[in-house]
Amino acid sequence: MSLRSLRFTTCMATLGAVSAILSVGSTPAKADEGMWTFDNFPIQTVNTKYGTRIDQAWLDKVRGAAVRLNGCSASFVSGEGLILTNHHCVVSCVQDLSSAENDYVKNGWMPATREEEKQCPGQTAEVLTDITDVTDRVLAAGAGLEGAAFVTARGAETQAIQQEGCGDDPKLTCQVISFYRGGRYALYKFRKYDDVRLSFAPEFQAAFFGGDPDNFNFPRYALDAGFLRAYEDGKPAETPNFLKWNAEAPKEGDVTFVAGNPGSTSRLLTMSQLQRLRDQQLPLQLIQGSELRGRLLAYSATGDEAKRVSVDPIFGLENSFKVWYGQNQALLDPAFYGKKQAEETELRERVAADPALAQRIGDPWTELETVQAAARDLAVPYRQLVTSAGGGSTLYGIANGIVGLAKERAKPVAERRPGFTDAAIARTTAQLGQEVPISKDLEEIYLGFWLSKTREYLTVDNAAVKNLLGRESPEALADRAITGTKLDDVAYRVAAAGMSVEELTALGDPLIDLAMKNYDASAALRTEWDAKVNAPTARAAERVAQARFAVYGDNLYPDATFSLRLSYGAVEGWSYRGVTVPATTTIGGLYERATGSEPFNAAQKFLDAEDRVNKDTVYNFVSTNDIIGGNSGSPVINAAGEVIGAAFDGNIHSLGGSYGYDGELNRTVTVSTAAITEALRNVYQQPRLLEELGVR
Amino acid sequence: MSLRSLRFTTCMATLGAVSAILSVGSTPAKADEGMWTFDNFPIQTVNTKYGTRIDQAWLDKVRGAAVRLNGCSASFVSGEGLILTNHHCVVSCVQDLSSAENDYVKNGWMPATREEEKQCPGQTAEVLTDITDVTDRVLAAGAGLEGAAFVTARGAETQAIQQEGCGDDPKLTCQVISFYRGGRYALYKFRKYDDVRLSFAPEFQAAFFGGDPDNFNFPRYALDAGFLRAYEDGKPAETPNFLKWNAEAPKEGDVTFVAGNPGSTSRLLTMSQLQRLRDQQLPLQLIQGSELRGRLLAYSATGDEAKRVSVDPIFGLENSFKVWYGQNQALLDPAFYGKKQAEETELRERVAADPALAQRIGDPWTELETVQAAARDLAVPYRQLVTSAGGGSTLYGIANGIVGLAKERAKPVAERRPGFTDAAIARTTAQLGQEVPISKDLEEIYLGFWLSKTREYLTVDNAAVKNLLGRESPEALADRAITGTKLDDVAYRVAAAGMSVEELTALGDPLIDLAMKNYDASAALRTEWDAKVNAPTARAAERVAQARFAVYGDNLYPDATFSLRLSYGAVEGWSYRGVTVPATTTIGGLYERATGSEPFNAAQKFLDAEDRVNKDTVYNFVSTNDIIGGNSGSPVINAAGEVIGAAFDGNIHSLGGSYGYDGELNRTVTVSTAAITEALRNVYQQPRLLEELGVR
Repeated sequence: MSLRSLRFTTCMATLGAVSAILSVGSTPAKADEGMWTFDNFPIQTVNTKYGTRIDQAWLDKVRGAAVRLNGCSASFVSGEGLILTNHHCVVSCVQDLSSAENDYVKNGWMPATREEEKQCPGQTAEVLTDITDVTDRVLAAGAGLEGAAFVTARGAETQAIQQEGCGDDPKLTCQVISFYRGGRYALYKFRKYDDVRLSFAPEFQAAFFGGDPDNFNFPRYALDAGFLRAYEDGKPAETPNFLKWNAEAPKEGDVTFVAGNPGSTSRLLTMSQLQRLRDQQLPLQLIQGSELRGRLLAYSATGDEAKRVSVDPIFGLENSFKVWYGQNQALLDPAFYGKKQAEETELRERVAADPALAQRIGDPWTELETVQAAARDLAVPYRQLVTSAGGGSTLYGIANGIVGLAKERAKPVAERRPGFTDAAIARTTAQLGQEVPISKDLEEIYLGFWLSKTREYLTVDNAAVKNLLGRESPEALADRAITGTKLDDVAYRVAAAGMSVEELTALGDPLIDLAMKNYDASAALRTEWDAKVNAPTARAAERVAQARFAVYGDNLYPDATFSLRLSYGAVEGWSYRGVTVPATTTIGGLYERATGSEPFNAAQKFLDAEDRVNKDTVYNFVSTNDIIGGNSGSPVINAAGEVIGAAFDGNIHSLGGSYGYDGELNRTVTVSTAAITEALRNVYQQPRLLEELGVR
Repeated sequence: MSLRSLRFTTCMATLGAVSAILSVGSTPAKADEGMWTFDNFPIQTVNTKYGTRIDQAWLDKVRGAAVRLNGCSASFVSGEGLILTNHHCVVSCVQDLSSAENDYVKNGWMPATREEEKQCPGQTAEVLTDITDVTDRVLAAGAGLEGAAFVTARGAETQAIQQEGCGDDPKLTCQVISFYRGGRYALYKFRKYDDVRLSFAPEFQAAFFGGDPDNFNFPRYALDAGFLRAYEDGKPAETPNFLKWNAEAPKEGDVTFVAGNPGSTSRLLTMSQLQRLRDQQLPLQLIQGSELRGRLLAYSATGDEAKRVSVDPIFGLENSFKVWYGQNQALLDPAFYGKKQAEETELRERVAADPALAQRIGDPWTELETVQAAARDLAVPYRQLVTSAGGGSTLYGIANGIVGLAKERAKPVAERRPGFTDAAIARTTAQLGQEVPISKDLEEIYLGFWLSKTREYLTVDNAAVKNLLGRESPEALADRAITGTKLDDVAYRVAAAGMSVEELTALGDPLIDLAMKNYDASAALRTEWDAKVNAPTARAAERVAQARFAVYGDNLYPDATFSLRLSYGAVEGWSYRGVTVPATTTIGGLYERATGSEPFNAAQKFLDAEDRVNKDTVYNFVSTNDIIGGNSGSPVINAAGEVIGAAFDGNIHSLGGSYGYDGELNRTVTVSTAAITEALRNVYQQPRLLEELGVR
């Protein structure tokens, strides 16, 4: 459930600007630790430990079947474009296809024929085809530059590499990705499908049984699975390189591989960077996130339609909240924090003991400490006016995008912000033409919340706050802007996307006006953050990475960056404070845990099927694989390269995985293909899907 | 506005159980630092610094006019029982007297005659009459005991001292109060008035202009003043010892005294205690408080009546939130925290340098570190099941009180929990007979929030959680318990207060059933907390206090404990990061700051009076007095012993005042008697009050 998070979505947006990513080195991996890139997988280690016969062909096959979705992972499971992922990765699509009359979130999406599968607005599916090292080019681009100039030069070079790699081909994605926090850069090239349709989704209550209370916990009883289908030129895509469906559940001790896109880890940050996360960033996210959670929960209790439209936003926010909370608790744990401190001390001592190395590396740790002081001063305005501007309002995002197009288009290409090439502008404009369901109630909650917190944290007398609010209250302004904007009309926003700043001003749309007011202050802060935080961080972190390579060698895995990785492990429970948790649950356990009260009410179809279903079927299982948010929907694969489940969560201990992996406690939680098969057969009666999966 | 806080209210409840208070020593006071007891005021220091002629007679007079309210401070300002305090100290009374038809919060409470003044439910007024040192008795009571036995013995001795002092006289209050965190104990004896009526309150919008955004900020334009009247035997009390009303505003540099009841400071805690506050307690309060804030804000937006009933709860919560946030920021500030650390190091070194002293004191600092580890493990269940049980629901509090009466009455007196003597039981029963307005909507929000957070933080499979919830969801249970309970009926609850456990069970009241379910788990946790945290803390903290007296002498002020204190200072602005804030504002400034949008909409009567009012009148002013939450409503007094204002807030820097005073930055914010006079004369036309105050 919990491997996708709002925070992670934010992360994705900044991955394009490589220089924005903080960076450091890494200590050697232990146990089943590691989110390995496909070009540096420890084949020999795994084969020795688990008696497997992994080889390059095996890796190539898995890579070709692995799919990256928007913020999630997945895999092809038939030759006709069928994709297995998590329910929680498709639920926003289900919500988009729903209406007050037809609530597919509640009732499930189960078309009788392939022709009735409907397109998920904005959903793409990407398959990694090529990896090219571009470290030298990226490093050369910033050579001799400082501050914002450094960031701009790197951004431009990144854009150039991507443009050279993919041109304007809409069927390709090219992305320069940072690894080891600046130790390596690579161009990842993807085959991209932008017509992705919804084939099957169970009821929310089957997928998310136990809800937020059970999220990140185990034992679990969740059918967190859904199927999409990639289309090409209006027909199901041909995908001969798919993973074979294995409907047998694994046993304790069986080896498991997880291929997917872990979103973001911070294991290679220095202690001063972790300290700012612990003392400033995470607390602020937790505090503000809690208030928004309260507002949304109270709103959802006001009526059936309010409840319907807020199911997915609440689930996303509660998931993020739990992640942040777990992360902060890990950093506040003296033992965990002390271990990180000891690792850094060791690395610094080993660098200092080698005069030539010390000369080359300098003291990036102290440099990063200085950067944190600057970051601490800027972080709150940067958050309120840049990274959290709009508070999650889709329409504000659209307004801000449209203002950005007008502002940047007016500049020569070389002076534009990253992401505003002519081709990128064309893509953005095309995206604006897609229909997206909007709840104006929610939009107003988000926008009002953002404005009110911005006033609270920057204070009433702050110039940016005065500029945004004028003489209005946050609530009144949010009401006026959301009620008055016409940006929920597709034709209107496509027209606006082609307008100049003057034309937009003349339009008099209150939400565009608001985004316009914030644009320059926001851009100035972004530049200041680049100069005072991003640039010196990149500079220093690269040298920490080099120190790490010099001391520990190249057999290291990088921090997660929502790029394709492979982790290995085995089906295994765990023990904590005297309690042993077994590795598997069965479908029968669902009926025992169900109380009838939300969120522990079993789905009606499951209740109806109680006599038909095989209660001994393994439902969910845990394994030692090292994963993180973004891995949601990742295929869990056996030694033969067959899919045996879809990873959908980590246990509660895995939340500290952002900063370090503990093989004794960290576990991946997976819904088995065995349970999905059983449900398709005896709960949902879906012969067409079973047939396509090769199960009779 | 902000000197009263919910947290502080919680604090008060535990003051009776002396042993529950953490304790440590104190470093010598600097600048205008210090919340001094009346029996240890630095008369000579003040007279020398400010050229005043303070003497014992001056102190006695001020003490006799100072009034303690429920969670607030105040003073007599006429011989006929008239009491000056803050509007925010009477607003809950105003809310109690209001209804959907007559909203006195919105419109103000301005009776034309004394006869129309109405009683404030539950409000008391107490005047300190005697102070007796009882340190030896309290210490002797715990001698040779450990753990829960120690806590029980001290609690019993405290009860005995109080009982000896006041008997069952309803006109007296006796309270044993801890000072210097266990370094001294004193019996404070009060003359108590339990018929307190509301004489005057301005409109909420006049009192709280600028709302939460301006709270703890300055410049300010708030008429945060209100008048109560003490009654005795149905007539206005005779109070010859009142403070003379001075309608002249002070000037920059004028000396100011504040006599009131600062609620709680933690300046004498050891570093390990502060660290747990910083890393566990405050973050949890902030996170949970934020979500409740969001729920209440969203609820208040659902309609006029919802808005009306939630004004005061929201304002109280937002005030607490800002306090906790400021406190946590102070502890997260490396310079501030480092200074505290240096002070502790110095004290420990000076103890270590004196072998005899070191022998006597031992190592209480390390002992307290060990206690924190235990506290860390217990804190979350202790919070959820004990200190925050019910989540703020008044009816749950009543139910729990009734269950407590039944459970404790069944025991022999010697075995009862503190606070359950026969006399105390009689008082509690009498209180239950008072009418208190209840919003069942709010009650359900509080109870549901508490149950849902308890499940979230203790997890679904926790035995206490299962016991509370059974097969119901938190929301459904809250709905059923609040809808079904009859405890909002006074006669019903008075009857229930006399019942045995069996009779209560037979009653079948769902809220009493819920409180019953939590009672034993809660009592067990309380005992465990006493044994593992309170008792060893008291033991160690007393020795830290002794170390402090030995090293620094007796000219120290104790931490605040909601007991009468006197602080001194002068009218003075401050400078921070290059910005200088003047010491005073004028009424004219209100009209400039008003935007017309909530909460910056001036009250209508002020707008109507714009042509009549003297805009040059000093409205609010700041001074260097050292105060904290609980001081709300304190008289600000000039050298002649006349009242010149009512303290109602601290500036933003004063929030760190919980842990230390900074004379450069910490400021008390006061509404001047000059402004109150001007408002009574030209805004509200209240000749009867002006006459009583001696102003023509």
